[in-house]
Amino acid sequence: MRDQYYEQLDSIVDDLVTLTGTVRKAVAAATAALLNADGPLAESVIAGDREVEETVEAIEERTLLLLATQQPVASDLRQLVATLRMLTDLQRMGALSVHVAKVARLRIPDVAVPTAMQPTIMAMASTADQMIHAASRIVAERDVDAATRLEDTDDEMDRLRKQLFRTLLGGNWEHGIEPAIDLALLGRYYERLGDHAVSMARRVVYLVTGEMQSS
Amino acid sequence: MRDQYYEQLDSIVDDLVTLTGTVRKAVAAATAALLNADGPLAESVIAGDREVEETVEAIEERTLLLLATQQPVASDLRQLVATLRMLTDLQRMGALSVHVAKVARLRIPDVAVPTAMQPTIMAMASTADQMIHAASRIVAERDVDAATRLEDTDDEMDRLRKQLFRTLLGGNWEHGIEPAIDLALLGRYYERLGDHAVSMARRVVYLVTGEMQSS
Repeated sequence: MRDQYYEQLDSIVDDLVTLTGTVRKAVAAATAALLNADGPLAESVIAGDREVEETVEAIEERTLLLLATQQPVASDLRQLVATLRMLTDLQRMGALSVHVAKVARLRIPDVAVPTAMQPTIMAMASTADQMIHAASRIVAERDVDAATRLEDTDDEMDRLRKQLFRTLLGGNWEHGIEPAIDLALLGRYYERLGDHAVSMARRVVYLVTGEMQSS
Repeated sequence: MRDQYYEQLDSIVDDLVTLTGTVRKAVAAATAALLNADGPLAESVIAGDREVEETVEAIEERTLLLLATQQPVASDLRQLVATLRMLTDLQRMGALSVHVAKVARLRIPDVAVPTAMQPTIMAMASTADQMIHAASRIVAERDVDAATRLEDTDDEMDRLRKQLFRTLLGGNWEHGIEPAIDLALLGRYYERLGDHAVSMARRVVYLVTGEMQSS
């Protein structure tokens, strides 16, 4: 009976890691759609979010069932509760990839991001990608040290966001209002993607150490 | 023993309702700071978020303790899990009120919002306020009909956001890049505040009907 329980718990964590990989791919696809004005790819990200939503709901159902039927205590309870919180993060990360894809779609056949700003957006996307990848490994391996390193990567994201806003507001902006607004919102979306990766990592640290870090 | 359990459960719901009121006040104060360029008020919202964070953590602790010690099943379990999810919403709503206050602070002594745009921001803030107030009553009274009406109010928020972006991008914008970006982000913050109120209401509907509405 308990063996079966731990099998189910492991399978939930496996599915959480797989879902993190799915979300990571969605973010990468949304960024590619954005930088290449690729309409079909943007549509596939937007349509694909239903699968993320359904997977979130399916894992949530199984987690609740385990909570209800096995009535776990202590660290097992914490694991299941952390799973529910991480599912909220993943759901939001899926929605954020859709937001990026929708900015891409809105400007097609143009590329929403002016050429000069593409390196900044690429750097933000790449930082978000690293952070989501790290979160996935942290969940899979309960790696507290990697969670600390993730906070450093988040500082890099912060630096990139500030750089983006300095460029937008520096007085030499010549691309008009529309790309400026697109970029401000895109900057926010990538920043939030990173925040959710940090939030997932903090849940794991809490599981391992029993101490919650403030946000 | 069970009586004490239900007392604790009721007290958690009461505290959730109170916290929703606190967050609602923070949003109203942030909007007032924004529209009046009121520095001390903006600072008080930013500093006050620590109290929201601490209250969230305290309620979360008590919810987990109840989960661990009482091992509730069925609807009691769902109530506690819904509480954890609503705490995530409230935590984010607190953070969003801080974001609004920080836009205010950044532009002081100027008012971040150009005079012509103030009615739109007031309407968005007022809609968010109504939605948070409705969410609070829905949580307190498990009012499923009010949750349906809340979705209509969310449509109004959507309409206001579209109106805001039409003005920003309509070609007659004469206030420059900085206010345009501020307004795009502010629009997003108020919209997200409304989204979280809807999310809270949906959790209550799920508790009452057992059916989760898709987002």
